[in-house]
Amino acid sequence: MTAAWAASDATSPLEPTTIERREVGPTDVAIDITYCGICHSDVHTARNEWGGTTKYPVVPGHEIVGRVTAVGADVTRRAVGDLVGVGCLVDSCGECAECREGLQNYCRQGATGTYNSPDPHGTMPRTAGGYSGSIVVTEDFVVSIPDGLDPAAAAPILCAGITMYSPLRHHQVGPGSKVGVAGFGGLGSMAVKLAKAMGAEVTVITRTDRKADDARKAGADHVLVAADREQLKAANRSLDIILSTIPSSHDLMPYLRLLKRDGAYVVLGAIEPLREPVNGGLLAGNRISVTGSMIGGLPETQEVLDFCAEHGIASDVQVIGVDGINAAYDELAAGDPGYRYVIDMSTLAK
Amino acid sequence: MTAAWAASDATSPLEPTTIERREVGPTDVAIDITYCGICHSDVHTARNEWGGTTKYPVVPGHEIVGRVTAVGADVTRRAVGDLVGVGCLVDSCGECAECREGLQNYCRQGATGTYNSPDPHGTMPRTAGGYSGSIVVTEDFVVSIPDGLDPAAAAPILCAGITMYSPLRHHQVGPGSKVGVAGFGGLGSMAVKLAKAMGAEVTVITRTDRKADDARKAGADHVLVAADREQLKAANRSLDIILSTIPSSHDLMPYLRLLKRDGAYVVLGAIEPLREPVNGGLLAGNRISVTGSMIGGLPETQEVLDFCAEHGIASDVQVIGVDGINAAYDELAAGDPGYRYVIDMSTLAK
Repeated sequence: MTAAWAASDATSPLEPTTIERREVGPTDVAIDITYCGICHSDVHTARNEWGGTTKYPVVPGHEIVGRVTAVGADVTRRAVGDLVGVGCLVDSCGECAECREGLQNYCRQGATGTYNSPDPHGTMPRTAGGYSGSIVVTEDFVVSIPDGLDPAAAAPILCAGITMYSPLRHHQVGPGSKVGVAGFGGLGSMAVKLAKAMGAEVTVITRTDRKADDARKAGADHVLVAADREQLKAANRSLDIILSTIPSSHDLMPYLRLLKRDGAYVVLGAIEPLREPVNGGLLAGNRISVTGSMIGGLPETQEVLDFCAEHGIASDVQVIGVDGINAAYDELAAGDPGYRYVIDMSTLAK
Repeated sequence: MTAAWAASDATSPLEPTTIERREVGPTDVAIDITYCGICHSDVHTARNEWGGTTKYPVVPGHEIVGRVTAVGADVTRRAVGDLVGVGCLVDSCGECAECREGLQNYCRQGATGTYNSPDPHGTMPRTAGGYSGSIVVTEDFVVSIPDGLDPAAAAPILCAGITMYSPLRHHQVGPGSKVGVAGFGGLGSMAVKLAKAMGAEVTVITRTDRKADDARKAGADHVLVAADREQLKAANRSLDIILSTIPSSHDLMPYLRLLKRDGAYVVLGAIEPLREPVNGGLLAGNRISVTGSMIGGLPETQEVLDFCAEHGIASDVQVIGVDGINAAYDELAAGDPGYRYVIDMSTLAK
């Protein structure tokens, strides 16, 4: 049994509760959770905003950092005392082509999410996330938190970080690349830091100039205000790729015109129907792609942690106690503050 | 002066007329036109169906095959008597990155179309196409019709053929590739033949089973009827790429579900706003791209002609006289017959 914070329905605040973690199996690792980031997905799930898919009670949290407290008999790569992380996934089929390639995030059977996923191995019908004192996870889904990363600031790398890193790598961003980042919140901020560390020239495109200074502080070379048509026109066909962290359906056309031939617009935030029409003639006329990307596999999640340690990249975080969760949710629901909230799990009453 | 057929407004049938071609300049080639294909774009332009962009009178035709009758003083690669072709483009800036790469179709200044394009070098304000006795074109925009290709059947390769060939090459289709072709008309038929010749396994997806036999005759390994949800479900995540020749806005979602991870849906026919929403979650969840492609550059246009000659690929054509143009237009407007009309220009009254 472990203490946790759970939502019991779509409208009530999260409250303290107790959950039962499974016994440590032969390939399992038990982790005492020290920090857990709050992701906007947590809010959507707790409030049942994803097509009614939430089963209550739900314990959110998939940016988990902690210390190993026990390992199963067959565990070879983790030891008691290791500082480790658990991200968005805790299991997958392990057998499909995607899993064999280390792309568990694209598992053909559907990977098991860290919370609110059906869980054949658990003690509850659904997985329970990191707003809790401990977790038990198969070692294949545990990553190392490298020395030199602040544990609290490392937590958001497990979701926000990998979500940005994977498409940057997939689209082979490097020195000379011209990268656009549409939307500048917690995801956008990570995108800027990662792309800069890869050697790219980075342009942030925001709705208003309110966040322009923050974007430049994060390392953006240029800031475009989306509402300013003249600015956009001047940047016509100037970018190789745009990572779109805009969290809901939006008109892609002004952004697509910023792309060079063969450019890609990568939808990362708006995982819903994109209601405003895209013009097929523009896609054809400049051979542009509209595509997406979803978190990353386990090897790449380790890679982004190592990359951040090597390049001194940290998430901008605000550490809160468990009793600050509901206020943080309200703030996230009102708009992305540009940093990530991370819960100090030592504040959890045990 | 040369005889030609032109549309004088959006609603009248095309009629015989006379046009003036420019003098043969130092880098120009004069061509006696023997065959000219009829493309659906010709119909759209003649009937002013592309956003009111047509200037009248317009002489359509951009699938031109003919014999060289004169060359300018500086022409080195063409000689009188050569069997040559002219496709969709007759000029471009020649200086942008795209032109320097041989991708004149993506010229940043906008290439000069074979008809209805502003023409600084011409004797008329707009370029005039291949429904005419002759044409004068700079040699850089002239391709060779290889021996072994039937001249009439070669004409549609200059538009329909290159439109399909370029995305197949760009997406590196080869032995083992699983290629879908959505829509089976003149474009779809070329797509099947080209993809098969590249070694791919080809699936045609048609709205009804009316064209299933024709698709198999063209070489399709499989035919899926789009209206049959069970058939589509069984083919879930089975294709690497889908070339969409569907000529107007359509719901992409049933097709996108047929794609494997990292699959691409290439919009080739619907060069207009794609009104039905694409789900960003599907793009992200399987890293799918929606993209497009527009004809091809001059080197690749020569390449597809050579490829067709080498592999014995010809368009399915129906050769007509000039007096059959208007009936052919009506038939194309009613629906793609699955073959291309080609005008025998020897029937033109000179």
